[in-house]
Amino acid sequence: MASETRETNGLIGSDKVEGTAVYGTDNDKIGSIERIMIGKRDGRVSYAVLSFGGFLGIGDEHYPLPWDQLTYDTDLGGYRVNLTKERLEGAPRYSGSDWDWEDRNRAREVNAYYGSSWIGY
Amino acid sequence: MASETRETNGLIGSDKVEGTAVYGTDNDKIGSIERIMIGKRDGRVSYAVLSFGGFLGIGDEHYPLPWDQLTYDTDLGGYRVNLTKERLEGAPRYSGSDWDWEDRNRAREVNAYYGSSWIGY
Repeated sequence: MASETRETNGLIGSDKVEGTAVYGTDNDKIGSIERIMIGKRDGRVSYAVLSFGGFLGIGDEHYPLPWDQLTYDTDLGGYRVNLTKERLEGAPRYSGSDWDWEDRNRAREVNAYYGSSWIGY
Repeated sequence: MASETRETNGLIGSDKVEGTAVYGTDNDKIGSIERIMIGKRDGRVSYAVLSFGGFLGIGDEHYPLPWDQLTYDTDLGGYRVNLTKERLEGAPRYSGSDWDWEDRNRAREVNAYYGSSWIGY
């Protein structure tokens, strides 16, 4: 049975992004992508949500990352972000459902932390 | 343990879209969303891939739908598309990995079938 195409040069399937490892500037794995958050109307990725899957003992912490921060590195087989684990520790994050995704101040805070202008407000 | 936010007014998580039922104009379920295909550079959803999960006996058939064709219907608990099952049968589709996602003629064909201008070429 032919396997399905989940990635091409220009496109990637959401189910391929989910679970993909994320590496920091020092090539250390700092987590993995849990899901991506998509604008219902404009069909645009706003955030990729990074988590640790609990294995670092940090537990239920989720870090919204602007999509433009992720660069796929074929050698690493995962996304590279311009961050160290230490730097990530101070980044905007939430536990459980404690994040107001519609709060523009929080979106600005995320953008500012990563020096991104990705999230559209 | 608080469950995580996978949807807000304006945003939806990719893992919530995947597996969501799709209903046609006659309220019949015509399939479910398998994944969404995202532009790596622009972070924009190009296609949602609809499949039947085999349960209608149609087997391994996948239908790329422009994102703007999907309207979430809270009563149905799934996406509504302006299509009948019969109309879907003639839509552009592929089996296995037999789809060239970079082929602009195919993208135009998909757009044209649904009367959409969603896919950006």
